[in-house]
Amino acid sequence: MPSAFEYKEVVGISTENIEAAIKEGLDEAAKTHHVAWFEVLSMRGRVTDANEVEYQVSLKIGCRAK
Amino acid sequence: MPSAFEYKEVVGISTENIEAAIKEGLDEAAKTHHVAWFEVLSMRGRVTDANEVEYQVSLKIGCRAK
Amino acid sequence: MPSAFEYKEVVGISTENIEAAIKEGLDEAAKTHHVAWFEVLSMRGRVTDANEVEYQVSLKIGCRAK
Amino acid sequence: MPSAFEYKEVVGISTENIEAAIKEGLDEAAKTHHVAWFEVLSMRGRVTDANEVEYQVSLKIGCRAK
Amino acid sequence: MPSAFEYKEVVGISTENIEAAIKEGLDEAAKTHHVAWFEVLSMRGRVTDANEVEYQVSLKIGCRAK
Amino acid sequence: MPSAFEYKEVVGISTENIEAAIKEGLDEAAKTHHVAWFEVLSMRGRVTDANEVEYQVSLKIGCRAK
Amino acid sequence: MPSAFEYKEVVGISTENIEAAIKEGLDEAAKTHHVAWFEVLSMRGRVTDANEVEYQVSLKIGCRAK
Amino acid sequence: MPSAFEYKEVVGISTENIEAAIKEGLDEAAKTHHVAWFEVLSMRGRVTDANEVEYQVSLKIGCRAK
Amino acid sequence: MPSAFEYKEVVGISTENIEAAIKEGLDEAAKTHHVAWFEVLSMRGRVTDANEVEYQVSLKIGCRAK
Amino acid sequence: MPSAFEYKEVVGISTENIEAAIKEGLDEAAKTHHVAWFEVLSMRGRVTDANEVEYQVSLKIGCRAK
Amino acid sequence: MPSAFEYKEVVGISTENIEAAIKEGLDEAAKTHHVAWFEVLSMRGRVTDANEVEYQVSLKIGCRAK
Amino acid sequence: MPSAFEYKEVVGISTENIEAAIKEGLDEAAKTHHVAWFEVLSMRGRVTDANEVEYQVSLKIGCRAK
Repeated sequence: MPSAFEYKEVVGISTENIEAAIKEGLDEAAKTHHVAWFEVLSMRGRVTDANEVEYQVSLKIGCRAK
Repeated sequence: MPSAFEYKEVVGISTENIEAAIKEGLDEAAKTHHVAWFEVLSMRGRVTDANEVEYQVSLKIGCRAK
Repeated sequence: MPSAFEYKEVVGISTENIEAAIKEGLDEAAKTHHVAWFEVLSMRGRVTDANEVEYQVSLKIGCRAK
Repeated sequence: MPSAFEYKEVVGISTENIEAAIKEGLDEAAKTHHVAWFEVLSMRGRVTDANEVEYQVSLKIGCRAK
Repeated sequence: MPSAFEYKEVVGISTENIEAAIKEGLDEAAKTHHVAWFEVLSMRGRVTDANEVEYQVSLKIGCRAK
Repeated sequence: MPSAFEYKEVVGISTENIEAAIKEGLDEAAKTHHVAWFEVLSMRGRVTDANEVEYQVSLKIGCRAK
Repeated sequence: MPSAFEYKEVVGISTENIEAAIKEGLDEAAKTHHVAWFEVLSMRGRVTDANEVEYQVSLKIGCRAK
Repeated sequence: MPSAFEYKEVVGISTENIEAAIKEGLDEAAKTHHVAWFEVLSMRGRVTDANEVEYQVSLKIGCRAK
Repeated sequence: MPSAFEYKEVVGISTENIEAAIKEGLDEAAKTHHVAWFEVLSMRGRVTDANEVEYQVSLKIGCRAK
Repeated sequence: MPSAFEYKEVVGISTENIEAAIKEGLDEAAKTHHVAWFEVLSMRGRVTDANEVEYQVSLKIGCRAK
Repeated sequence: MPSAFEYKEVVGISTENIEAAIKEGLDEAAKTHHVAWFEVLSMRGRVTDANEVEYQVSLKIGCRAK
Repeated sequence: MPSAFEYKEVVGISTENIEAAIKEGLDEAAKTHHVAWFEVLSMRGRVTDANEVEYQVSLKIGCRAK
């Protein structure tokens, strides 16, 4: 097991549901890092012009640089 | 852009899922206000007599009176 | 059961005791809303000129408009 | 109504979605207690070896021993 | 002095006053544990059908199993 | 002194400075209420297309309906 | 009105009730300071050997040195 | 470097702006202590009879007695 | 991997150092549970009559009943 | 709109005023990222040898890498 | 037992370890007060020019003036 | 003095003690940054298969890129 990890914080956004927004955030971090675990920091959102709810989920991600 | 918004806080309730409870809360606020954005404050719930999980999601909503 | 409630926040004030201050806050909200439940957010106060302790109790109240 | 309840805290885990993880946590508590209500304390997770997101939802549960 | 204590969390409920609700919570814990100290976590409540205020006080109790 | 106040929460917005944003929020509340005191809940902002910093200050305002 | 106040933090203790514990804390601060306002920070306690509940209320007090 | 500092908490008050209120608080502490650093704990305020905004800034100050 | 864990909260106490106090808390939980992970909630203490510092470390422990 | 943003946290420092310190922090982030929004996390400071107040404002910035 | 205690907040600093920093803070308070109990508020630090880690532990101390 | 710093968050891990875990986290950040100061955000851990306590200390580090 490594002796240290770093944290990255991201916001994942989706109009589908909360889980899809989390997936967007994890995918963003996975571009540059190996994702080990995450924690949901907050859930925000808005109503789009198409009258859909857009979920914006902030994640704190434990990871290591690729 | 307006120079001020007000906050309303509501609880949306649904036995379907968390997203449906959020939608109930947003609909409640939309009766009297233009909804601009929201933040999930807490998620609570209970088990109903029909043995379903009832989700109770508290929202803080940035809005302007209609 | 309704599918949504709104929150109102009030401060109830009394020199009698904490319970009386809570009652003042609930009475204020009950003028315009059906009170369902409440939570104490903070308790503050001051010493009056008559040397009494004045209790100021902030309440977050789950309710529905009358 | 009883004059007291106790709190149990559990973590429910599922790769399906957040609601399924909540259900796992409630089922764990229901083995030994009558569940009255719950509150979500935190949502954490990880990416499994099968590349699925695993949701770990911490619940604080108001209950009474069976 | 023991080298460890455990925490129990309970809700005490009373329509009399806050102190009586605390007493209900301590009595619940004392059925199975020796109570050493407590901390008030939150105070909630509701208005009963008889128009009384019901106090619901959450306590975190430092204790040892009997 | 009144025996109760209500709280309103608003966001005041200005590209001038933080104090001007607070003033916008107080003015919004003053349209319908007598403002007694306020507390800054959070300060957010963004960079506008004109490359100015826009300050968005959330206020919790103790007040009474006019 | 003065342009500055200082804060003192004290714990007031009483086996009578919460209000009496608050009064003990205010009296302690009043020995050396003019008390302007206070806020309850936490409420803790214990069960005494005489089986009474002892309330320990922490106060943050806005004041000026005498 | 000293091996210990103490904290003082003060409220600085000004109708000019937030920075002037911070300065009032620092000046209050500097009467009796060497000020090393500070942190803003909260910003509150009120509207004066002269219709000015009065800023009340709470500071936690790291210092050593003179 | 199990689909649920429970949380226990304990206080571990030692005059040796913080790590020893954590060990006391983990040992207390291990009497009845399989310990999976823990989080430090708070560190308190006192000075004993023998003029030693006694460390009191509160832990939240993720575990399963034996 | 992008489906994800990342957060950067910075401290901006200025002896001029709080707004100038925020600007320093935003400029630091803008060297490598497109800044979308920010939130003030804390405001700290110190008194310089030249007897000026130095403002140190911590910002959480929503952004995307350039 | 006294009916009131006061709180002092201090920072203890040491390059040895966390326990030594706590001891420095308690010693600072003990110069003028009888220390009854303490709580760790935060742990900060820096790397010194000699490449040592310097621990800065903030304590909230329950005490009575000597 | 620079007019801005950035924050990095890391987790340092060690089975030796808390100070060693902090050192691992600082060393991780020092690979790419000049470390100016740090703050402990949380302390978690687990019991290893070899029955040792593994300390996992989260740090928020004020730094500048090398």
